[in-house]
Amino acid sequence: MTQQKATNITWHKGNLTRDERFAALKAKGCTMWFTGLPSSGKSTIASALEQVLVQRGVHSYRLDGDNIRFGLNKNLGFSADDRKENIRRIGEVAKLFADSGSIALTSFISPYAADRDAARALHDSAGLPFLEVFVDTPIGECEKRDPKGLYKKARAGEIKGFTGVDDPYEAPPKAELRLASGEMNVEACVRACLELLESRGLFVGR
Amino acid sequence: MTQQKATNITWHKGNLTRDERFAALKAKGCTMWFTGLPSSGKSTIASALEQVLVQRGVHSYRLDGDNIRFGLNKNLGFSADDRKENIRRIGEVAKLFADSGSIALTSFISPYAADRDAARALHDSAGLPFLEVFVDTPIGECEKRDPKGLYKKARAGEIKGFTGVDDPYEAPPKAELRLASGEMNVEACVRACLELLESRGLFVGR
Repeated sequence: MTQQKATNITWHKGNLTRDERFAALKAKGCTMWFTGLPSSGKSTIASALEQVLVQRGVHSYRLDGDNIRFGLNKNLGFSADDRKENIRRIGEVAKLFADSGSIALTSFISPYAADRDAARALHDSAGLPFLEVFVDTPIGECEKRDPKGLYKKARAGEIKGFTGVDDPYEAPPKAELRLASGEMNVEACVRACLELLESRGLFVGR
Repeated sequence: MTQQKATNITWHKGNLTRDERFAALKAKGCTMWFTGLPSSGKSTIASALEQVLVQRGVHSYRLDGDNIRFGLNKNLGFSADDRKENIRRIGEVAKLFADSGSIALTSFISPYAADRDAARALHDSAGLPFLEVFVDTPIGECEKRDPKGLYKKARAGEIKGFTGVDDPYEAPPKAELRLASGEMNVEACVRACLELLESRGLFVGR
């Protein structure tokens, strides 16, 4: 059995084309870029969406602070240059996942429009879909949630340069999806994400 | 149809576990790390293996100079520090792919044992398999192939610090697989890689 599987080898010179790859995997790669204030619910929604996609046999992978800030980007701090490089690398890695046939979900505050636009341009130039998802939770609601007490510290001046308090958040004017997560529950947000993917022909479950 | 698919949403708090992910995707993530001299055949073998895996419905993705040096690592040069950082980032990205349930294939000279060992340690600590594949082609054969004329330039002193000429290649003493690519054709090399994956229970085709 093992030998039989291993002996049947067909390949061609040069690289697999993207069309060949996506057809063989019954997949469409893309990036959904979640952006929003701290505690707006980005990671909760992206995590739930990832679960739903994977449970349906769709390769999807979330890039977030947990697996990026302590890994690939552990040599970056919070200076302006480092924040920009942080988002640049995330955009590059998301693009690789999308190119591989996975649905990449990035979950970072990513407060500056220019940095998000650069990630979008990277995908555009590679012919890969980039869907910006604005998790639009009012700051009052974010501050009420504040699970790590970070707004409180920022208001007290113990944290400097905190997005929404003393550093700007540039809301995306033309996001592909806006989730009013103050009014919608997680299921409703996930449903809206799935509907967006389906409307673009990007969600191919088994 | 579309609506029916989108309404059935089940998820739990917290992240998907790796076991849940791999079971749902019918996949096992890992990294195969190809190392060898310039022109040893790493990319040819990795590209053929990637094709065979993908054609069988297995998510696999190759990281190589084409998609890394001009993307994620475009801000790195060839100083000692930058070479090390180059391999560090590749190790981190390969780990993310492996964690996602993909078979990551890295194809870089990666001449220093310490850098390869660091990538291995990263995978070990995350409980992800790391398989080092030594593409062991004699330098005379590599130099005869020399498709880009780089050995010739290095011998003429026009390129400095070229691995195998005036910079060392540290052969891996304990690679999981050694491919004598001077004596084996591409099919035989791919077959050996598939057999290694199968022997570790890592190759789960549809």
